[in-house]
Amino acid sequence: MSGVVAQRPARRRLELDERKRELLAAARAEFTARPYDEVSLDRVAARAGSSKALLYHYFPSKRALYTATLKQAAAELLTRTEPDPRWAPDERLRRGLEAYLDYAEEAGPGYVALLRGGVGVDKQVFEIVERTRERFISRAVAMMGVTDPPPTLQVALRGWLGFVEAASIEYLRHRRLTRQQLLSLLMRTAIAAVDGA
Amino acid sequence: MSGVVAQRPARRRLELDERKRELLAAARAEFTARPYDEVSLDRVAARAGSSKALLYHYFPSKRALYTATLKQAAAELLTRTEPDPRWAPDERLRRGLEAYLDYAEEAGPGYVALLRGGVGVDKQVFEIVERTRERFISRAVAMMGVTDPPPTLQVALRGWLGFVEAASIEYLRHRRLTRQQLLSLLMRTAIAAVDGA
Repeated sequence: MSGVVAQRPARRRLELDERKRELLAAARAEFTARPYDEVSLDRVAARAGSSKALLYHYFPSKRALYTATLKQAAAELLTRTEPDPRWAPDERLRRGLEAYLDYAEEAGPGYVALLRGGVGVDKQVFEIVERTRERFISRAVAMMGVTDPPPTLQVALRGWLGFVEAASIEYLRHRRLTRQQLLSLLMRTAIAAVDGA
Repeated sequence: MSGVVAQRPARRRLELDERKRELLAAARAEFTARPYDEVSLDRVAARAGSSKALLYHYFPSKRALYTATLKQAAAELLTRTEPDPRWAPDERLRRGLEAYLDYAEEAGPGYVALLRGGVGVDKQVFEIVERTRERFISRAVAMMGVTDPPPTLQVALRGWLGFVEAASIEYLRHRRLTRQQLLSLLMRTAIAAVDGA
């Protein structure tokens, strides 16, 4: 009997966590599908089969909801591109880029939003994007086996990340070249940027 | 006598144009010196030796003033990096990059603002930045003597512009490498990006 009583709050919490996850998933789908200004919180709630009151309970504003979806998207991007330490460096680079492009293609405008912060780049959004970039750079530095990266390498990797972002956006916008062409462009410039840096 | 009468409106207009220019110059200095949110229109007006009423007469909102300064900054960047057709291609690239870096160093945070749109990337700001990028790309394509650039070249140039922007921002932020090091990094990656594209 006492077991049943103890179980209830836990189950209730699980249900609420599940609700929050559903709301977040619905928000991501909406923010991916249309520009920030056109996202309606009514539609997000309806999509999650939830109420707007519960949405506001978890996310006090549209901005807060947006920031939460961006954080989730950034975390997912980092997980999906996590290299396997058993791979050789060029294999890590290629597979990392493949995973990055898979992500960008699936997310579509959501990828651009992740980079550009959608309609408004506030400090919080900027920091999420920056932290993601810094993680990519630390991974690259670790992959190269460098413990104290010289400033030229730091700038080269930063620049190259800017290259990957800009080229991927352009690729997604027009889709006039193959993924293989994009991939070899990204790998070629990675080598050129890092070479001698 | 009639000459004096006719002169007056013209002189008055010249004075007003001059006032507008002064307001714009003051606004640029303010937007360059601090983040968008911290720019005060009172200070802009005071800096230009003008009234806030006149400021609002020309620029109905802070956003409008900001957009006008960005447009001016973008036009200046394009003028300063305009290549001399008598130069050889690699000379054009090097001199163009030198002028670009001069501009970025002088503008400092204003350069970052031009790229990132400061605190809020609205459509207008985004379009100013995008048009500037497109101009750079058309120049590069013209410089290469290509009339119908293949998609790979388009994406390579876009990517490279992303490289230049990201690397310059990183360079300005820490200044831990020399300009010559940055310049050779940018030239090396330009060649790698375009090579085979």
